[in-house]
Parts: sequence; C-alpha cells; structure tokens
Amino acid sequence: MTMRWWGWGSDDQGFDISTRPRFWPWLQDRLASPELPAQAPVERDAIGCRPVRLPEQVLARIAEVVGEVNLSTQAGDRLTHTHGKGYVDLIEARAGRFEAPPDAVVFPATAQQVAALLGLAAREGFGVVPFGGGTSVTGGLAPRGFEPSRPWVSLDLGRLDGVLEIDGQACIARVQAGILGPKLEEALAGAGFTLGHFPQSFEFSSLGGWIATRSSGQKSTRYGGITDLTIGLEIATAEGLVRLDDGPEGCLGPDWRQLLVGSEGTLAVITEATVRLRKRPERQVHRAMVFPDWERGLQAVRELMQGDRRPAVVRLSDAVETEAFMHLRESQGDGRPGLLQRLVAWYLARFRGIHRQAGCLLVLGFEGRHEEVERDLHGARHLCESLRAFDLGPGVGDAWHRGRFSLPYLRDHLLDRGVFVETFETGVPWTRLPDVDAAVRAAVARAVGADGLVPVLLCHVSHPTAQGACLYYTLLARQLEADAVGQFKRYKAAVTDAILEAGGSLSHHHGVGQLHAPWLARSTGAQTTRLWGVLKAAFDPGGVLPAPPT
Amino acid sequence: MTMRWWGWGSDDQGFDISTRPRFWPWLQDRLASPELPAQAPVERDAIGCRPVRLPEQVLARIAEVVGEVNLSTQAGDRLTHTHGKGYVDLIEARAGRFEAPPDAVVFPATAQQVAALLGLAAREGFGVVPFGGGTSVTGGLAPRGFEPSRPWVSLDLGRLDGVLEIDGQACIARVQAGILGPKLEEALAGAGFTLGHFPQSFEFSSLGGWIATRSSGQKSTRYGGITDLTIGLEIATAEGLVRLDDGPEGCLGPDWRQLLVGSEGTLAVITEATVRLRKRPERQVHRAMVFPDWERGLQAVRELMQGDRRPAVVRLSDAVETEAFMHLRESQGDGRPGLLQRLVAWYLARFRGIHRQAGCLLVLGFEGRHEEVERDLHGARHLCESLRAFDLGPGVGDAWHRGRFSLPYLRDHLLDRGVFVETFETGVPWTRLPDVDAAVRAAVARAVGADGLVPVLLCHVSHPTAQGACLYYTLLARQLEADAVGQFKRYKAAVTDAILEAGGSLSHHHGVGQLHAPWLARSTGAQTTRLWGVLKAAFDPGGVLPAPPT
Repeated sequence: MTMRWWGWGSDDQGFDISTRPRFWPWLQDRLASPELPAQAPVERDAIGCRPVRLPEQVLARIAEVVGEVNLSTQAGDRLTHTHGKGYVDLIEARAGRFEAPPDAVVFPATAQQVAALLGLAAREGFGVVPFGGGTSVTGGLAPRGFEPSRPWVSLDLGRLDGVLEIDGQACIARVQAGILGPKLEEALAGAGFTLGHFPQSFEFSSLGGWIATRSSGQKSTRYGGITDLTIGLEIATAEGLVRLDDGPEGCLGPDWRQLLVGSEGTLAVITEATVRLRKRPERQVHRAMVFPDWERGLQAVRELMQGDRRPAVVRLSDAVETEAFMHLRESQGDGRPGLLQRLVAWYLARFRGIHRQAGCLLVLGFEGRHEEVERDLHGARHLCESLRAFDLGPGVGDAWHRGRFSLPYLRDHLLDRGVFVETFETGVPWTRLPDVDAAVRAAVARAVGADGLVPVLLCHVSHPTAQGACLYYTLLARQLEADAVGQFKRYKAAVTDAILEAGGSLSHHHGVGQLHAPWLARSTGAQTTRLWGVLKAAFDPGGVLPAPPT
Repeated sequence: MTMRWWGWGSDDQGFDISTRPRFWPWLQDRLASPELPAQAPVERDAIGCRPVRLPEQVLARIAEVVGEVNLSTQAGDRLTHTHGKGYVDLIEARAGRFEAPPDAVVFPATAQQVAALLGLAAREGFGVVPFGGGTSVTGGLAPRGFEPSRPWVSLDLGRLDGVLEIDGQACIARVQAGILGPKLEEALAGAGFTLGHFPQSFEFSSLGGWIATRSSGQKSTRYGGITDLTIGLEIATAEGLVRLDDGPEGCLGPDWRQLLVGSEGTLAVITEATVRLRKRPERQVHRAMVFPDWERGLQAVRELMQGDRRPAVVRLSDAVETEAFMHLRESQGDGRPGLLQRLVAWYLARFRGIHRQAGCLLVLGFEGRHEEVERDLHGARHLCESLRAFDLGPGVGDAWHRGRFSLPYLRDHLLDRGVFVETFETGVPWTRLPDVDAAVRAAVARAVGADGLVPVLLCHVSHPTAQGACLYYTLLARQLEADAVGQFKRYKAAVTDAILEAGGSLSHHHGVGQLHAPWLARSTGAQTTRLWGVLKAAFDPGGVLPAPPT
C-alpha cells in the first residue's frame, strides 16, 4: 500500500462520490458556481525529477549503513517523498511540480541504522528529513533550513514497524516508531488492547509522526492526546541512540520526553516509543443528535465535558457542515430526499423548533464497559434533550464512524473539480470560543469576498475538554486556477491572523511545520522560539535534521 | 501561621499521640526496644546564626527592589529558611545545626519584583534560592552549586498568594505561585471549583512548589498530577518575566511548560500558574476494605485502575502498615482493643480467612456526581469482594480522610523518642512491582540488621494508574544517636540502590533535590542530566539560582 502521489490514500480505497448525487448540486448552488469544470492531475510520466546530487561515494556509504536494497535514488520514490498532503502540496503535485525532491530515500531496518545514518550525514554534510507516513498538512516534510544546494535524504521509517513488546499486566507496549495506525491497532487488538489514538490520518500516519507532531486523535476525550499516551522514547541522534524514560510515573526533573513530543523532526529521529494501552472496549456506541442552534450545541458539549461523563468522540457541526453532511449521504436514484427524510425534517421544524438551515449535528461516541457506556449515553442524551436536541438514533452516528477516515478523499474529488478546499484549526478556551469563531467567519467573508467569490465555510467543534475545544473549519471556494497558491496564502493569512488576534492557538493538532512557522513567535512568544534553537544546538549541533520552524 | 523550625507544621495544629495509647507499646515491641528515651530539640535561643555576608550597599539595593520591610536579615527568618523537612533537615534543626543559612530573606509582593531581584543578583553576584512552603523532603532548599563563600538570599514567595482570575466557564484559574494549598482551595471552593491537588504537605506547600517538584496529590487518580493540571506559567528570570502558554490544547512544538514543571528552582522562579479546575464534587465517600493478603489487594487495585472505575483515592497498606494504623486509632482507657474490635478480628480470622498478621487495608475514595459515586463505589466493592476483601464500612475510610495531612506530625513524636523514621517512594510498572518490593525489603533487612537493629517497614501502594503505582515505604528503627546522619545515609543508599537495580524510578513524587542527585544520571541517563545543564545555561546563564541536581 502506497500513498497516491497526487492525493490522499491508496488506489484500493477511496470515497465514492458517485453514490452521493445530492452533493455537487448543493455545492454548486452554495458556491454560486453553476459550473465546476473537471481538472485532472498531470500524467505521472510527464513529471521530471532533478538529478541526484549526492556523490557516488556518499551513496555507497549510505548503502553500507542501510543495505543497498534499502537505498533508492529512483524518481518514483523521490517524488512520493517530496510533498505532504496539505492543499499546496496537492496543488503542486497535481501540476507536476516537484522542485526540491530528496536526492535519495532510505529505508533503515533498525534504530542503530538510523543513528548511523545521522552520524554519516553529520560527517558528509548531507541533510536528513524524517518521513513517517507522509501525511503532514503543514509542510512537515520540507528540508527546512537546508541550503538549496545541499543534498538531502528522506529517511523513511516504514520498516521500523514492529510491536516489540506488549506488557499486558501493566498495559504498556514498546513499539517501533514507523508503524502505521492499522498495523499497530491490529497487533494490540490481538492482545486485547487499544492505544485509542485515531487521528483522521490514522490509516496512513505513523506512531513516530503522531509523537513528532503532538497529535490528537478523534477519541482524545477518552484516551488523551499522544502526549498523554507516550511514556518512553528511544531517539536517534548523530551521536547514537538515547532512551528517555523515567518510568510511567516519576518526578525526576523536567519531563524530557516532552522535549521530543512535538519536536517535528528537528531534534532527533524518534525510533521507538513506549505507550500506555487501554483494554479494548467491551462496547462502542455512536449517537447523533441535532440541536436547534449552535449555541445550545456548544453548551451541551461544554457541560458534557465539565460533568463527569466520558465520551470518546464529540463532534458538533455547525449548520452549514450539518447541511453538507446531509448532502453527502449515500442515496439511490435522483438523490432527492425520500419521503421519510422529508417527514422528519417537517416534524423537526414544526414541533421541535429545529430548522433545516439552523440545525447542528452532534456526534457522540461512547466506549468501554457495557454498563458504563449505557449509563454515560443515557446521561448525555438527557443533557442534550434538556437543551432541546433531537436524538437521531444510532444510524447517523454509525455512518460517521464508518466514514471517519475517508473525508480526506473528498478533497481529491473537490480538487478534480477546481474547488479550493482547506482546513483551519485552533484550540480555544470555552470563554474565547465565540470571539474566535466570529473572527474567523468575518476574516473568511472578507478574504474570499475580495476575490469576488462566495465561500462555503463548514465548522465543527471537536476534541473538547473541560477547558476548551478545537474549532475546526473547512473552507470551500472556487479555485483561482491561475493563482491557486496565492489564493491559499491570502486565505491562510487572513484566518490565522484572525485566530491569533481573537486569542485562539496557532494550531490545535496539525502542528507548526512550514505552514505555521511565520506565526510561531507571535503565538508562543520569542522565548519559546529561542528555546527551540537552544535544544536544536544540544540535540543536533551538526544541523543534520531540518531547522526548527521558528 | 509559620512552620515550626524543628519539625512539621504549626504550633496550633498537630497529632495528639496521647489519645493513641496502643501505639508506643506496639512500636517498642516491634522494634525490640523496651525503652524509647525522650530526646528534645535544643532550645531555640541556644542556636546561633552566622553573620550576614551581604554588603550593606547590596542589601540597600535589595531593599529598593522589594521594599525595606520585605527584606529580613533577622536570625529567626534566616533559620526558618535554612532547612526543609527531610529527616536529616530535622535532625540538624533539632540539634541546632544551621550551618549554611541564607544571608537574607526577601518577601517580594509582585512577579516584577522577583524578576528585578534575579536581575540584581546576576549583577551583584549573590545567589537566590526560591522558597515556596519550605516542605521539601529532598533538600530542595539547599543553595546547591553555590560557592560556600557566596552570599545568598532565600526568596520567599509567600506574599504572591493571590487567585488572580477564575474563569468559571472554562474551568481555568490564574493563580500566583506562592499561594498555599488551603487558601487556594478556599478561593476556588467559593466559586464552586477545586484544583484537586492534595499532597500530604497540602497545608504548608505552595502551588509553585508543587509545579517546581512535579508533585502528585493523594487524589491524582481522579485529578491527575500537577503536570496535568498546569496549562500555563509565568516565570521570572534575570532578564524579566516570560509567559509560557500555548492555550489549554495546542501542538506548537514541544510543550515548553513542561521544562519548568519539575525544574526544582534551577531554571527560573515560577511566579504564576494557569491551572485546570474541576467542579466541586457533589459527594465524597471514603471506604476501607481489608484483604486477606497483599497479593489480592494489589490485584484489586490494578484491576480497578485498568477498568473504567475512577476512584479519587486509592491506598493499599501492607500488613505491617495496616497493623500500625490499627494501633494508631484513638481510644479511651488503657488502649486494649474493645470487645467489638476483638469480635470483628475473631470473625474475620474464623470465617473470612483474614488474619491479623496478614490483613491489608485498602482505603478508597470516590467523589463526583451523586449517582456516579454510588455506582463506582458499588463496582469497586464488588471487585474487592470477589477478591475476598471484607468491607469495613465508611468509618475507617473517613478516619483516614480526616487524618490525611497529619501523619508528618507523627514523625516529630518519633524523633522525640529517638526513632529513626524515613520514607522511600518509587514509581513502578505493575509488572516490576513484586521485584522492587522484594528488593526494598531485602535491602532494609540487610542495612538495618547490619547496625544490629530491628526494622519496622510499613508500605503502601498509592497513586495507581493502569500502568503502575507508587510504592511508598516508611522505615522505623532505633536511632543511632551518635551517628544519626550516617545511619540515614546508609539506609537511603541501600534502599535507593535496590530500587534502581530492580527497575523502580528514583522518585515517584518527592523530586530529586540534594537527596537523589547522586543517583539521577544512573536513573534517567547521562543525556538527561546533560540536557538539564543545557537548559540551565539558557534560562539562568548567570547561575543566580541553584545548580541542577546532576
């Protein structure tokens, strides 16, 4: 299974848009664009790749470290290790622009080989960019800070994919960092456990990548973010392997593991992690409710998190996202709503005060022991209904759960039709949420309006805690084909400025990368960007790995 | 309220040993010491204090920063800021040895004054040791790394004790770091909240101290440790104030706040923290069970934590600690067990297989919403009873809760009678717990036996998670009066070596300090001690604050 070079996922999976006939008409109407003309990626064979700039003798030494078959200078490997999966990455890839590919890709088999490669790189002067699953949406695969003329190698950790040890008695596993989500969960499930970390990229992203980017999964309300799940690390530096581990619970100075969590490949290469496990839940349920408005939905989510309920999944969509979901449901025939659907809509509007244009969908997931799931679901329903929500039953919730990893494929369909599509996310305390939300909406209206276009802005609140939540936006607009990257940059800057101005965080779970680097100092303060430099000098004095995004 | 200079707590509180007539006979028997002769601390007036070594003009500048009334060079203030509350601290204090007191004590009123003082110290060359509540048991108040001839100032943060802001909607508070536990909880309770952080030192320790030492409270199973509770910091350095805060949830590089959590006063002075709050529980219950043996008790605790129960308090005592508690119960008259008590003991032994010498006490606390407390308690009882525990009802549990902060006073009574008393604690994964436990018991038997003494070793398991727990030992023995410090050092070294050898952490929640410094590199690796030095150079290049314990 390989990631597509021009889009999300692999060819044997996807998101069948043809079974969702109501989507395009709805979107065309919303975008005020009667036409959405087809735009195909360039042919793979038409894409050139610059020559390999590593001298033969250096390549020979790299081959000595990882073995000849695990060193590739083929264009195919180099191109698939050039771009991540952000909007600009895909625009570039679809247009056949691969201007700064790695000069080689290596696939080490052991942590020792990783350390040896870094040592060789320090001596020979080439750069190294760690590559986990390649799903970064913030430019995390870029050779940041390398001189343009400097050769560099993409370090693909995909072969370091073993579950080394499962300590069932202590609910701890030791796992190699290159393992992808499905293989990890499969191995854990075999022993009766789960890590519980399910980012949307789950199928294609790696444990090491999750740690390097301080990732949060869709079930973080139950399982915590990757920060909470990581209790030990092995890292490779040019000087060798280092273990960072003061036991599951200790207080021996600062928690050094936290220096690597979120380090985004700048300090060292994460080769192994020790993680907390949970027993596999006896039962999982998903439930969808619809609220008459956004405010009551928000109140329900906040009260749910500040009480002692423990949902695993909480996602509240605003009215437009709710509408988009409804138009993305699979249906037969011409796609007009069936009689039952129209009856429900009529009933909700007439008797429950929940109107089509205002209704907000809440998806809740509970998992754990049978009786707890039952009780927590009951408590949550009671709370939601007291805020005038209508329980849609398990169907819509289960549909969300089935499709929870497939939405990135939809982006490719949108790009195929010339639609700009980007997501923006920020962490906010509950108190600031309304201001940040208003600021983003105003910024989008201004920025997209200035291009003479009509935006479609979807929003959901997810990953809530008692303190706040992630506000997650998806912006759709007609793509300005001749200026797609400029269009992106304008919208990104407008939204990011608005978020920071209103008191949101620069990113909730996407990371810094190239994308957010220009705002980092403004967001976290000059001291923290200085500290990143201090750590860089301590961990990677030779500058083998990418520079901090500061 | 001031801490006693020779022992724990303040004069208006304490632990009335006279109402517990069964304790001394039990202990004398256990220690095989028919006599435990009284030993009083020296008279306060007999204690000298070395001259102030700060030049007048420097004192004048300090007074300009904090105000003249907030600078003290009085012997009384200097002596109470010399020692913490470890065993050796108390031995030294009771003997009147205050060899390296601070040359002055300052009581700044603002964070700006703290930063200004650090700046002044950098220019004038004197050292500064932050002082929160003064309850360190690891030598955390020592002027570590200062040249013996260098004057230094104790920086008492006690006046920075305000709750600056409670954001009730987002369950967040901004609090000055010098606040002590009771004042903090009182202010939060007034707004309907709790921090939920209750270390045994709660009454006398400060928020900043909890953060600086990466503290865990007795209710960490519900509320998390201070690491989890801290979401923002303001710190003072010689260059000024710095805020570390990427919002309650974000992923903007490494979590820089974690560099200060556990930094033990070596990098900067914590002046303010932003913390997560929980709503005050509707209900609190405490319940005690007795298990027929240690193994079944351990199994119950582990299964409790690996299921979805959420106790707030979990403390499983071994048979000797259980016996000690029984002999510490208040009673009237001659202290012989009453008829009822003897009947219960007979019943347990005869019909439940729970024998006096083997029974292990488990104290559980649950708090939260009424129905959840009820249900979780019910589930926990069911689990414990399936492992042959006998439910002692709420009385013993409530007694634990009432007395939960008073046990340190008992240490003073023991010192008054010439009894060596020290606690050892380590974090262990469940899988390693039996080995670590066996290693500690063997080491204690060897080390104390080598002095020709009989040890009494009490143990409990607390702060459990799904991964492991804290093993917490209290060792009692006859004090070797002529060699009390040497005796301590031998026992400490024997136990610590045994813990590390068997795979326990160097400390679960006491911290590093002077006490554990010799073992730090062995425990966490040379790389982590090197990193502490790197951070020291970045945060405190002038070496104003104590050196890292590395």
